[in-house]
Amino acid sequence: MKIYEMKIAPNPRRVRIFLAEKGIQDIEYVELDLQNGDNLTADFKQKNPFAKVPVLELDNGQCISETVAICRYFEELHLEKPLMGITPIEKANIEMWQRQIEFFFFLPTGMCFQHTSGYFKDRMKPIKEWGEECRTQICKFMHMLNKHLESNQYIAGKAFSIADITALCTMDFNRVNQISIDDAQPHLKRWYDEVSARPSAKA
Amino acid sequence: MKIYEMKIAPNPRRVRIFLAEKGIQDIEYVELDLQNGDNLTADFKQKNPFAKVPVLELDNGQCISETVAICRYFEELHLEKPLMGITPIEKANIEMWQRQIEFFFFLPTGMCFQHTSGYFKDRMKPIKEWGEECRTQICKFMHMLNKHLESNQYIAGKAFSIADITALCTMDFNRVNQISIDDAQPHLKRWYDEVSARPSAKA
Repeated sequence: MKIYEMKIAPNPRRVRIFLAEKGIQDIEYVELDLQNGDNLTADFKQKNPFAKVPVLELDNGQCISETVAICRYFEELHLEKPLMGITPIEKANIEMWQRQIEFFFFLPTGMCFQHTSGYFKDRMKPIKEWGEECRTQICKFMHMLNKHLESNQYIAGKAFSIADITALCTMDFNRVNQISIDDAQPHLKRWYDEVSARPSAKA
Repeated sequence: MKIYEMKIAPNPRRVRIFLAEKGIQDIEYVELDLQNGDNLTADFKQKNPFAKVPVLELDNGQCISETVAICRYFEELHLEKPLMGITPIEKANIEMWQRQIEFFFFLPTGMCFQHTSGYFKDRMKPIKEWGEECRTQICKFMHMLNKHLESNQYIAGKAFSIADITALCTMDFNRVNQISIDDAQPHLKRWYDEVSARPSAKA
């Protein structure tokens, strides 16, 4: 099995942390340089027509793209050390949080970066006003998350889950947007320090 | 069990179609008027702090929001008639398509509507240029989807899945953006006619 990725990008890091938490190590990683367009070749678009990383390539050649779909594959293969829940209600609750983190935190973070930095301006149309609006949404969400974490050890409650991985990678990636946890967010800071200290955070 | 929804909105329709496909009927629906702000009350924000519909309320009072998390709950409770796959690779492949439809079709569709129509202008900042950029992305995605459906009966391959439900609801909701399938997209049209003819489409 191979994973095509770019080590500094947030989505590949989500997969690496997920695999580290599950103790899965027998994966070959292929590094692509996205700014150089390594993902825009005809060969790579055969693996993922949307030209995004990460992509998991199985030994039979079948490719799975989309971070959470790749995580799902490994979760289903290795049900021990669950990161997506076991019972129906646990699975639903974790998926709810995972998606809220994605829609209200991860996606605005990526769009804020792309629309204000000009990083991919050769292949998209940056709209600065939209990037700034995303920045406002990110800060608003962090405020809500701080309140939520006052009475919850982890994002989805008592157990560490894929939702914490998504939130950690989003928080760290916000360095590119010059957004960080502020002094008025002690619960967010407590959670951040705790999940950052897990060995998987270095994956 | 209760589901809080607004019947004409696309996310609640995704859940209704999902439940119809699985033959689940014993649900009470509570209609909210979003434009009137029924979702902005303190009571509703207890159920979902993000004030979105649909929300599933269980008999014990626990609430699950996020369309796909609600679907996951029912999928796990009723594994017969699977709409999210059975084997690890089927689950991963369906989730990949489901997410691609969401990120590259459903989300731009919603943002195109919100940023160009002014529908929620009392509670968000519409940026017309961003709405128009979303329109461009939608049309580009429909072109790719048409090609994909030339050699695939359904979005995720041979079996009808949650990805088809998301795509159908997105396609229909695009009426508000005046976007429809054009004559150069016969495979998309073939798929659309087929999934629209399923009894669940009327749910």
